[in-house]
Amino acid sequence: MDPRDAGLLDPVSAGSEAARATSDTAFVQAMLDVEAAWVGVLADAGLAESAAADAVAAAADASRYDLASLAARTRDGANALIPLLADLRAATRDAALAAGADAEGAAAAAASVHRGATSQDIIDTALMLMARRAGASLTADLAAAAASLAETAETHRGTLCVARSLTQHALPTTFGLRAAGWLSGVAAGADRARSALAAAPVQWGGAAGTLASLADSLTGSGTTTAQLTTRLADRLSLADPGAPWHTQRLPVTALGAALADVVVAAAKVGHDVLLASRPEVGELREPAAEGRGGSSAMPQKQNPVLAVTLKQASIAAPAQLAQLYAAAAAADDERPDGGWHAEWSALRSLIRTAAAAAEQLAALAAGLQVDTARMRANLGLSGDLVLSERIMARLAPHVSTPTASGKAAVTELVRAAQSGGPPLRELLRAAIDPAAVGDAELAGLLDPGGYLGAADDFIDTHLETYRKLDLHD
Amino acid sequence: MDPRDAGLLDPVSAGSEAARATSDTAFVQAMLDVEAAWVGVLADAGLAESAAADAVAAAADASRYDLASLAARTRDGANALIPLLADLRAATRDAALAAGADAEGAAAAAASVHRGATSQDIIDTALMLMARRAGASLTADLAAAAASLAETAETHRGTLCVARSLTQHALPTTFGLRAAGWLSGVAAGADRARSALAAAPVQWGGAAGTLASLADSLTGSGTTTAQLTTRLADRLSLADPGAPWHTQRLPVTALGAALADVVVAAAKVGHDVLLASRPEVGELREPAAEGRGGSSAMPQKQNPVLAVTLKQASIAAPAQLAQLYAAAAAADDERPDGGWHAEWSALRSLIRTAAAAAEQLAALAAGLQVDTARMRANLGLSGDLVLSERIMARLAPHVSTPTASGKAAVTELVRAAQSGGPPLRELLRAAIDPAAVGDAELAGLLDPGGYLGAADDFIDTHLETYRKLDLHD
Amino acid sequence: MDPRDAGLLDPVSAGSEAARATSDTAFVQAMLDVEAAWVGVLADAGLAESAAADAVAAAADASRYDLASLAARTRDGANALIPLLADLRAATRDAALAAGADAEGAAAAAASVHRGATSQDIIDTALMLMARRAGASLTADLAAAAASLAETAETHRGTLCVARSLTQHALPTTFGLRAAGWLSGVAAGADRARSALAAAPVQWGGAAGTLASLADSLTGSGTTTAQLTTRLADRLSLADPGAPWHTQRLPVTALGAALADVVVAAAKVGHDVLLASRPEVGELREPAAEGRGGSSAMPQKQNPVLAVTLKQASIAAPAQLAQLYAAAAAADDERPDGGWHAEWSALRSLIRTAAAAAEQLAALAAGLQVDTARMRANLGLSGDLVLSERIMARLAPHVSTPTASGKAAVTELVRAAQSGGPPLRELLRAAIDPAAVGDAELAGLLDPGGYLGAADDFIDTHLETYRKLDLHD
Amino acid sequence: MDPRDAGLLDPVSAGSEAARATSDTAFVQAMLDVEAAWVGVLADAGLAESAAADAVAAAADASRYDLASLAARTRDGANALIPLLADLRAATRDAALAAGADAEGAAAAAASVHRGATSQDIIDTALMLMARRAGASLTADLAAAAASLAETAETHRGTLCVARSLTQHALPTTFGLRAAGWLSGVAAGADRARSALAAAPVQWGGAAGTLASLADSLTGSGTTTAQLTTRLADRLSLADPGAPWHTQRLPVTALGAALADVVVAAAKVGHDVLLASRPEVGELREPAAEGRGGSSAMPQKQNPVLAVTLKQASIAAPAQLAQLYAAAAAADDERPDGGWHAEWSALRSLIRTAAAAAEQLAALAAGLQVDTARMRANLGLSGDLVLSERIMARLAPHVSTPTASGKAAVTELVRAAQSGGPPLRELLRAAIDPAAVGDAELAGLLDPGGYLGAADDFIDTHLETYRKLDLHD
Repeated sequence: MDPRDAGLLDPVSAGSEAARATSDTAFVQAMLDVEAAWVGVLADAGLAESAAADAVAAAADASRYDLASLAARTRDGANALIPLLADLRAATRDAALAAGADAEGAAAAAASVHRGATSQDIIDTALMLMARRAGASLTADLAAAAASLAETAETHRGTLCVARSLTQHALPTTFGLRAAGWLSGVAAGADRARSALAAAPVQWGGAAGTLASLADSLTGSGTTTAQLTTRLADRLSLADPGAPWHTQRLPVTALGAALADVVVAAAKVGHDVLLASRPEVGELREPAAEGRGGSSAMPQKQNPVLAVTLKQASIAAPAQLAQLYAAAAAADDERPDGGWHAEWSALRSLIRTAAAAAEQLAALAAGLQVDTARMRANLGLSGDLVLSERIMARLAPHVSTPTASGKAAVTELVRAAQSGGPPLRELLRAAIDPAAVGDAELAGLLDPGGYLGAADDFIDTHLETYRKLDLHD
Repeated sequence: MDPRDAGLLDPVSAGSEAARATSDTAFVQAMLDVEAAWVGVLADAGLAESAAADAVAAAADASRYDLASLAARTRDGANALIPLLADLRAATRDAALAAGADAEGAAAAAASVHRGATSQDIIDTALMLMARRAGASLTADLAAAAASLAETAETHRGTLCVARSLTQHALPTTFGLRAAGWLSGVAAGADRARSALAAAPVQWGGAAGTLASLADSLTGSGTTTAQLTTRLADRLSLADPGAPWHTQRLPVTALGAALADVVVAAAKVGHDVLLASRPEVGELREPAAEGRGGSSAMPQKQNPVLAVTLKQASIAAPAQLAQLYAAAAAADDERPDGGWHAEWSALRSLIRTAAAAAEQLAALAAGLQVDTARMRANLGLSGDLVLSERIMARLAPHVSTPTASGKAAVTELVRAAQSGGPPLRELLRAAIDPAAVGDAELAGLLDPGGYLGAADDFIDTHLETYRKLDLHD
Repeated sequence: MDPRDAGLLDPVSAGSEAARATSDTAFVQAMLDVEAAWVGVLADAGLAESAAADAVAAAADASRYDLASLAARTRDGANALIPLLADLRAATRDAALAAGADAEGAAAAAASVHRGATSQDIIDTALMLMARRAGASLTADLAAAAASLAETAETHRGTLCVARSLTQHALPTTFGLRAAGWLSGVAAGADRARSALAAAPVQWGGAAGTLASLADSLTGSGTTTAQLTTRLADRLSLADPGAPWHTQRLPVTALGAALADVVVAAAKVGHDVLLASRPEVGELREPAAEGRGGSSAMPQKQNPVLAVTLKQASIAAPAQLAQLYAAAAAADDERPDGGWHAEWSALRSLIRTAAAAAEQLAALAAGLQVDTARMRANLGLSGDLVLSERIMARLAPHVSTPTASGKAAVTELVRAAQSGGPPLRELLRAAIDPAAVGDAELAGLLDPGGYLGAADDFIDTHLETYRKLDLHD
Repeated sequence: MDPRDAGLLDPVSAGSEAARATSDTAFVQAMLDVEAAWVGVLADAGLAESAAADAVAAAADASRYDLASLAARTRDGANALIPLLADLRAATRDAALAAGADAEGAAAAAASVHRGATSQDIIDTALMLMARRAGASLTADLAAAAASLAETAETHRGTLCVARSLTQHALPTTFGLRAAGWLSGVAAGADRARSALAAAPVQWGGAAGTLASLADSLTGSGTTTAQLTTRLADRLSLADPGAPWHTQRLPVTALGAALADVVVAAAKVGHDVLLASRPEVGELREPAAEGRGGSSAMPQKQNPVLAVTLKQASIAAPAQLAQLYAAAAAADDERPDGGWHAEWSALRSLIRTAAAAAEQLAALAAGLQVDTARMRANLGLSGDLVLSERIMARLAPHVSTPTASGKAAVTELVRAAQSGGPPLRELLRAAIDPAAVGDAELAGLLDPGGYLGAADDFIDTHLETYRKLDLHD
């Protein structure tokens, strides 16, 4: 039975670019790329033959390796690099022979692989490389989502809807402001992810964080371990940390937290879309796509599956982050005895979940269908009661009685209106001296469109902040 | 690039039987088996043709389905059953045709698939089925581990070693009691897992938990939905819950908690082995196995990789359980809008982690190498100080002075011994009137083998409890 | 500044009976009760003076101890028992003197405290005792909630409402079945909690799990350590585990998981109430209570605060459980070096959260206001489309055309109705030969009350299961 | 029974400055300070009387409020600000009267409290304020810890010890490098916490994030809501976010992640100290302090309680972070219906845990006792085997035989030495032609002090990075 997982139990990422970019194959490719880059660095420094580097580069193609076989040998050393290294050495020898090397040259090429390195160097660096690669589509998707949301915020700057607090109608707001709020979260998440990905460093310390073997081989060469590490970082387009961080795992937690932030921001959109897609609310619909969201048994159903998977991601990511931090917090000695190993799947899951959520969010934001009439109708459900805050502040002085403060009097009118009495507007009119508050003024005070506060300013602020971030850069 | 995961980032399970039994292929097979069993139930009740049931059974072979294609279509409906169902219907038609049916018969066979069911029925039931199947090796491995530990407890009933508390030497104990403690945890975990697995129920409710479609089709047939669900449970060897639990997820959390308990119990062994394998302690060694635990760069190293992966599992499982509970706790409506979806990967991870940990534990327990001399030597490191509790209780009255209570006087002697003074034994001898406590009595009191309390009784209790559980049953 | 926490940041439990029953004071009282019970056991066995036991009992009153002072000394030994023990010994001496003892007798009474025990014995046992005590109100609240839900299920057996799946209207159901589903979860959670609480054991192992000191003092007495532990368990109404479980923490995880199950079950009710309380849905209202759910600024608002706090609990409990399992999974040696310490606050939080959620749930279930008209109206929102599953099954054969299968034809009619066309009913009438399906039959098929499947049977099943559990026992 | 918690179940923070700075009282004080600052802002803008601001300031003293009473009323509105506001208004009235105001003036003063604000504004901002205040000692403690570790790194630059990987001896290293690694983590954590704390913003949005009420009252005043929010931020020394973030919770997750990073960094030190404190290792001892780490029953024990509580924190913090992210990821609407409420206790716990861990770490780092002889002795345990990596690289060519590669030959010698054969050094001497590698060269190669790689450079890098961060600033 094929023991591999294709993502069937993870609907947010199944079949996604995110899943591909974080697959075991992608991880193997990243490990191979690190090994090849390292031999390249050694060759540049005259510490390996350039033919050897060429042979390793030729061998560094994940499609040449058997994942199932690697998996079968992974438990022996509790990591996948050890068996991969054996296979890579064999493949390098073959590649060298194929390139015309003699047996000795081929053996030398094979021996040049992994020189001075340890499995942790390769695995840590490969995971960072995989994150960076998967991060490219993640940041692009978030930039696209943000652009869509920015447009939605502008378009719906004047679209009235109800603001909900603890599930209840609170005040009028605009859908533009709600979308601008989504934008602010998504842009902030994108910015954090971008920064964290840009800071992703190589990890290079040798067997125990001293680079002793490497340093030993550099004796008298005029080359330093620091120079080689810097060149490796350059080759891989990763950051140069200056020193190994084999047991100081803050580079990993920083990345994980930023990825979880992306999910948090996307989830806010998802939750609001889930509610707004309900038939009883009906304010939003997910973009239609052939085959998406249907139900075989109930043809009338159109499920908001993009938002459903965002909610799924919102439940998974906090646990993945907990595992990542728990693993990092278990680091001991010069190579942790389990803490390190528990980090890998958590980090991969976070990259995958965040990148997949970004894909779904981009699709959702790009095609969100807005029913402004339903928004207005829902706002109307509460009638003038949705302005009770303003009524309290502005009209209470005019309805106070000898026996009741203005606040108490307004509250009484509100309760009366809520209990099936006449509309609040009529009760207020009856209670307030028209000389103090005329009909036009009263109507103005009860116009939800006139009680939007700084909504427009906040939209501007969010748009400006977003534009300054230059996420498409 | 192959988007499938083979387990390279999860060393505890990579290449294991647990990974195979919980793979996406295994999940697909379980879904197919549920669909086939259901048509079988319908056919038995005269609600489908037996030829249709045969065709479905023939089509219900996971190796016939393309995982990558299923994954690609999973996001559309946020579950994998929908695309699988389409493929299964096509395969059923083909199978029927191959079995000699005409076009109409083949179409009828295809149409009989999934009748009255909903995707949640299949997925929930398939996950329980997969758990049960993976559970077979889990329980066998735990039973084997427990048997090994029981033998170790008996063998080392008299093997003195030091009991450690907050990292420090506390009292003498026996390695037999430590092993019996491990046994008690492993046996309890095995028993809970066995019970939870035995209670794993089918979930069958139709589109909204009323089985309306099924009931509709049974009108006048004399058959009830309850009868059919019971027969389905029988066919799948799962429990019959009496009613759907589509949005009441306690069957899932109960299973998850029991699996996490298995990891907790295994982890205790792992931690103790990790410490005891350290060169400075040297009391235990993992069983040697060709290729396991080696280091390519440092040939002297023999890493305790079984215990390392148990520690890895101990860090992962709590987070997986948190995801499972968070998902269950998010259930709403008649089918949750994301909470359900977040459950699947968490449950699979828990089954896999627990079963893989059980495999590792069985290997570890079966071949653990015990260095009784080092145990005795380590106990000796603290000299008589490891008996200070007894000294305090039994000798304090004899060393009290006019100016110091017995307790204070003993403490003073202990401090003196710890600060490089003469051995505590000599200090005590000098301080105590030989008439009150003779040399032989003093020596007896300072014999660690004479201060083991109820260690033997507790070993017996743990062995007895274990035997009563009859885990091999 | 008063360093104590009163619960202001935990709204589900603030000011609750659950908070009181799990307060630091309750924990101190539980520790004192364990110490007093132990001296009582010793006295019964003739190993301590009964006057000493009386003095300890008199001193075992939490109100006599200064929490802040205990807290200040807790870090020194990383547990609170050590300073409490010092204070208890002093208080015992005072109590003995007050009872007429002379100085020597008072000193002996003080010395009899904690004999043969270790701080872990007291803390572990005290936490179990605290759980049992807090569990009394938890189980009573759950029983009350279940009784209310059972009544609701009966009352609303015939109340039609819409079943929602992935937020969308799926099928008709009854509110009685939804309530019966809630009941099934709550009853199952209550049963698990009850069982787990009933199994809560004393933990008694002495300094290193051998009871060496105690056994030493029993030499020749004819009394065994097992007898004394059994008697201690009897006195405290806790279970007798047969052996110490100081480093085998499954008794703790079992309790924690059951408590988290309670929260899962309560959360389901909470989520459904939150949705149903929304003005756009309006099917349910929380029971009104003076001062509850109001907003100072917006007098029209009535917030569903009971359900809000249940949702809060549903987010907190999984993390608390993760901490508990992580702590348990970190157990090492004969007393863990941090894993044990991380367990305490997690266990307390789980007890508190579950018990507080049970309180809120009982209040919610007791007074839930049901708007059956809104339920019916919401069901009507989808018109006949909510019966599309049935239409598909029963009418498709009658609408098939030469160019479209029945399924495709129905889907087309559904789409037409959804797109603003005539009601589905009319479209079906037009498409189906009246000779095949008459008007009355069509009307019957489109009656949501006639498509409830086994709803009533499932209500019966849930009620029966609940009654058999006898939660009020 | 006093329902308050003093920290008895949380040994890392019990009685600490961190507990005080994050107590409910501190939270109440922070809420009062926010309310007072806001009235001050209003008064400065001419929107409230300065006498009113004075009265509020006078009333804004947490010691005047009854925590238990506040707690008792917290559940009614699911937050503590609502009852506090009622009490603050009464206290403001009293303060105004006491300051000579008449009844009307006193009522006006009371009415000026909380104008235009909502409870979420106060609670969110107060939690940020509390974080900043608790952060002062946190950053100071981390700076102190870092300074101590920097000194340790310098002092022990030349102290040889063994580097451990997966529990086994790997290579020589220096204790200075290990301490520099600790420093790098602690400094990075401190820097992140400092940045996150400095970025902690006010949250100010009014009832639904539009500041409608405030804007309404500013009409025609020439003052904008933005100006007032900026001034509030200035008064509270918090950052000005530009717009409300009531439902975009990334400011909260950023803070939480940085705090968890602090715990991760501290935990690394803790784990290494726990191991090194074991009698079998004996390389480090915690600083002695009167009363700390003792055991009443076993006077010889000196428990590493500082490190034990760091490990406790390392298990708790990931779960607290998971709760924080789960809460943030549940944000919906314009005020979340439970997600927001679940955030508070998690954020407080993270602040408290991180700050308490920083306290413990500072104490640990300041007085860590280093046994350089034991370090050297432990390194010696592995003999020349700890240099096998170097031997393999440098001597393999000289021991190759016609039938075995150099690598195989070295491995054979290593195995022979490990199996009780002569020391590796002798085996190598016998196997290698003295003409190729002379005695002095061989001795040099086998000198652990000569195989430290870039250890010194990495110490320099860590020290430099630390100094540039200027944590004491």
